[in-house]
Amino acid sequence: MAKIVMKFGGTSVADLDRIRHVAGLVKREVERGAQVAVVVSAMAGETNKLIAWTRDLAPLHDAREYDVVVAAGEQVTAGLLAVALSASGIGARSWLGWQIPIRTSGMHGSARIEQIDPALLNERLSQGQVAVIAGFQGVASDNRISTLGRGGSDTSAVAVAAAIQADRCDIYTDVDGVYTTDPRIVPRARRLSRIAYEEMLEMASLGAKVLQTRSVEIAMLYRVPLRVLSTFEPDGGGTLLCDEEDIVEKKPVTGIAYSRDEAKITLHRIPDKPGVAAAIFGPLADAGVNVDMIVQNVSEDGKKTDLTFTVSRSELHRALEAIERAAPAIGYRDVTHDVSVAKVSIIGIGMRTHSGVAQMMFRTFAEKGINIEVISTSEIKVSVLIAEEYVELAVRALHAAYELDTA
Amino acid sequence: MAKIVMKFGGTSVADLDRIRHVAGLVKREVERGAQVAVVVSAMAGETNKLIAWTRDLAPLHDAREYDVVVAAGEQVTAGLLAVALSASGIGARSWLGWQIPIRTSGMHGSARIEQIDPALLNERLSQGQVAVIAGFQGVASDNRISTLGRGGSDTSAVAVAAAIQADRCDIYTDVDGVYTTDPRIVPRARRLSRIAYEEMLEMASLGAKVLQTRSVEIAMLYRVPLRVLSTFEPDGGGTLLCDEEDIVEKKPVTGIAYSRDEAKITLHRIPDKPGVAAAIFGPLADAGVNVDMIVQNVSEDGKKTDLTFTVSRSELHRALEAIERAAPAIGYRDVTHDVSVAKVSIIGIGMRTHSGVAQMMFRTFAEKGINIEVISTSEIKVSVLIAEEYVELAVRALHAAYELDTA
Repeated sequence: MAKIVMKFGGTSVADLDRIRHVAGLVKREVERGAQVAVVVSAMAGETNKLIAWTRDLAPLHDAREYDVVVAAGEQVTAGLLAVALSASGIGARSWLGWQIPIRTSGMHGSARIEQIDPALLNERLSQGQVAVIAGFQGVASDNRISTLGRGGSDTSAVAVAAAIQADRCDIYTDVDGVYTTDPRIVPRARRLSRIAYEEMLEMASLGAKVLQTRSVEIAMLYRVPLRVLSTFEPDGGGTLLCDEEDIVEKKPVTGIAYSRDEAKITLHRIPDKPGVAAAIFGPLADAGVNVDMIVQNVSEDGKKTDLTFTVSRSELHRALEAIERAAPAIGYRDVTHDVSVAKVSIIGIGMRTHSGVAQMMFRTFAEKGINIEVISTSEIKVSVLIAEEYVELAVRALHAAYELDTA
Repeated sequence: MAKIVMKFGGTSVADLDRIRHVAGLVKREVERGAQVAVVVSAMAGETNKLIAWTRDLAPLHDAREYDVVVAAGEQVTAGLLAVALSASGIGARSWLGWQIPIRTSGMHGSARIEQIDPALLNERLSQGQVAVIAGFQGVASDNRISTLGRGGSDTSAVAVAAAIQADRCDIYTDVDGVYTTDPRIVPRARRLSRIAYEEMLEMASLGAKVLQTRSVEIAMLYRVPLRVLSTFEPDGGGTLLCDEEDIVEKKPVTGIAYSRDEAKITLHRIPDKPGVAAAIFGPLADAGVNVDMIVQNVSEDGKKTDLTFTVSRSELHRALEAIERAAPAIGYRDVTHDVSVAKVSIIGIGMRTHSGVAQMMFRTFAEKGINIEVISTSEIKVSVLIAEEYVELAVRALHAAYELDTA
């Protein structure tokens, strides 16, 4: 008997009619003979409302109380869906993080799942009862509610799937799968029927918002077959995340991702000597700033050089403060920043075996007159920082150049 | 050092500004040197919204899921108030029912508090931390959230006060105390500075909505000094619930209560013989119907008689069904019912020592031409059933007759 996890995001459970619709989708799987665990998000808008209330009372607040407030959203959905399922004749009960329990780290507000006890869930599933699990939440070792950070319900779903050794984890959302790029920018973008975990991980990290990065990491680690599909057109096929070996046709580039959440910081005239990088990035790490791309200019005089790096826009202020505090230790002349930049990336496991893939990207940008400010590469992706105003042009040009426009 | 419990109802925490105001009231007590536990309701309207959602999905739903959904309201308020307190410099943390824990019976939706472990709360209170407790909820022995029924946060507050042996429990609400009667009917109604537990218990049972009956029972049982006062005019003095001995001036009647939630059922021509009452009220009890007033006519022929009793309007349908099912065992000719009735009551511990108190009530009604349909009495109250249209007239006339209009 198949054991599956179905996850529904906020727009899928936005109102009572949609919750009834979701109950219908769950019922269909139960009637096909599956054991089903469902993971739900808060109703669309609820989490934002609860966060706004908390911030309004105190911009800087205790993350443990933030968790108490926002976790209520998923709690409500879990109870309501259990009621809707029972009303349609399907035995179901809701589970909150502390009841299973889903144990997490103590980093309230952005906790990591550490352990899920599958015993209670498996017992009920084997009795034919649907488990409706509040996503996004767990319980920390201090016996207080913890939450996983935005989009955390994806992670809850994959972690539950791994814990109960589910045959499949279906992520139902408001799009019908993973696309070659954002269809709002490229109308000819196509849905991918399959994508390798590694590719999806890069896509998610680089700006594609369809899945939380952490959820893909866990799926990859535990080899959970993960499907992304539409709540509103559930028979559309969706996109299956799978092992590289299970993908037959490997194009050099699978997808194009972009992110506008980029800020560029440049330190001018820093000493060109050992230890200066540590003097810069140590204080940034201590301030909790994630540095993404880094480029250091070749020194002209062998004494002074410039260093540029990027951070997310929300961390810009914190990064600049940290740099200023560390000014005596670093010894730069001045610091400038630019938020009108964006990152565009090409991703594909085929890069490992195809040559000239990055070259095609640079040539395409040259033809369109797009200046590349920073470059960063890995085995299966190339990211470049460009002026934000060129984003749509760049994505469209790359989509055509790598022949993603055609099926 | 004084240890107090402060309870705030839904209108007191209806929005962020009011939550800030409540934080101010708590801060004031802390700065006076008190150890403070706060019990909060859901923000006004939230509970009704959550109940409506649950009912919309399934009029008959699993009470355990209902509890999961509605308990989220108090959870949000508790977290928000803890944030507001911290923002104003007061150390605070939120507590959910399962964290303390507040153990209840398994009657989900209308559970009774069975035990509150005071250890964790007392430890934090003694460290100067304010405990912000989600009212209305606990945890049942199945490790699932339970709720106490409407108005249950009052009960939470009093039970917490009893458990931690608080010096005082202050119930902050949108009125400034307990009145001699409903001021919407009698503008000259006066706030009582003191009322005996027993009187308040009758007032609450008989229709005064200022406190949940169960909370008064617990306060009386554990001798918790209970004050009702206004969130918006906290220095108005309020009303203190206390022992009978602590009330100096004992008027014969302390207050007038009324209830429109009454339905009258009459069984005509039942056999006038032993066992018939059991045949009627047994099935009603089995159907979960609470019977209030009962009157049996004197039999004229020694064989047949009529019997009238009252139930709350929401239970009328269930009561009639139970009676119909039991028809063969009872043997009545026909059954009639009337929902256009209301109950008016006079309450006062002074009745024990004053004579002629009930007589004054009957004379007043006679003068106003109000017909009394059923009478029920106890040591400290007299209740009568009258036609609903006379309610305001009756209450006003009694208020004047018992000299409650004058201070």
